[in-house]
Amino acid sequence: MISDLVRRTRSCRRFHEEHSISTETLRELVDLARLGASGGNKQPLKYLLSNERSMNGVVFPKLGWAGYLKEWKGPESGERPSAYIIILGDNDIRKSIRVDQGIAAQNILLGATGLGLAGCMIDTVDRDWLRKDLRIPDRFEILLVIALGKPKEKIVLESLGPDGDIRYWRDASGGHHVPKRSQEEIIVSLKP
Amino acid sequence: MISDLVRRTRSCRRFHEEHSISTETLRELVDLARLGASGGNKQPLKYLLSNERSMNGVVFPKLGWAGYLKEWKGPESGERPSAYIIILGDNDIRKSIRVDQGIAAQNILLGATGLGLAGCMIDTVDRDWLRKDLRIPDRFEILLVIALGKPKEKIVLESLGPDGDIRYWRDASGGHHVPKRSQEEIIVSLKP
Repeated sequence: MISDLVRRTRSCRRFHEEHSISTETLRELVDLARLGASGGNKQPLKYLLSNERSMNGVVFPKLGWAGYLKEWKGPESGERPSAYIIILGDNDIRKSIRVDQGIAAQNILLGATGLGLAGCMIDTVDRDWLRKDLRIPDRFEILLVIALGKPKEKIVLESLGPDGDIRYWRDASGGHHVPKRSQEEIIVSLKP
Repeated sequence: MISDLVRRTRSCRRFHEEHSISTETLRELVDLARLGASGGNKQPLKYLLSNERSMNGVVFPKLGWAGYLKEWKGPESGERPSAYIIILGDNDIRKSIRVDQGIAAQNILLGATGLGLAGCMIDTVDRDWLRKDLRIPDRFEILLVIALGKPKEKIVLESLGPDGDIRYWRDASGGHHVPKRSQEEIIVSLKP
């Protein structure tokens, strides 16, 4: 079972920014995405890679970080991602992609964990601004941005409290706590 | 790297139907989905399990199989899935889920491969009919059906031919061939 790898693959938002990630590593991760299933095997996803200071600096300000941590505006300089994989949808191949990007992103994140890296799938993206600054053609829909780096935070999975609050939170020592719904809550039994 | 597992996790459509899959195994697989990332950590996905002949018989006719194989109407009796995990979106928690179901489904499929099983994510579903026959409440959106079983077909990954055709096809001995786009095609380079 890959349960240990799945368990260790957590959304991470603070990194050792000085740890660089090579283009070769990014390509290995994209290859995991490439080999995932695709609806009708159309394979409409395209990937834009960023691992240099200048392009990373263009990508970073377009991203929304950890909406529930109101006091925290995102990782500070020195703790920012070392690389990004921007997942695009190629409208010339297929419009309104619903499942492919999640499959691809999860393969990338699992692969990153296996390499001692970590990341975060970010859907809160200023897409217009990112498109403009990177000159992304209209043909491509910006589906998801995956931030990657060497992890610098401790993440703890836990059960939901009695109030059912799903918001992640940080403890005094900076540990990031993620409440997960139980099996009992997510497996539906239908009355016959 | 998990590249070997990713590579072996292929969409499979013919199974040893007599091989049963226990509820415990389905719950293990759902647990992999449960531990995946979720947008805003809302965890809106719910799961409906089927591994008994009667319920499997209700689910099967609602599914569309392998659209490119015009001659083949889906697996015959004896080669049908032994189980299904139906991924639902709980509208009371979140509407219009875009990424979570792909993450969850991929964790399930990777886990199934690790157990010597295989499956197929099916989006071509007669949702109204399935909802009616299983009495799925309106609160739940039917996002995806994952068919599972012990695999009974050989699947070959290959490169796209010069015509760029992405349609999978079957050879004379029943081998299922899946053309995949190359890295060069899917990694985008933008002109500065």
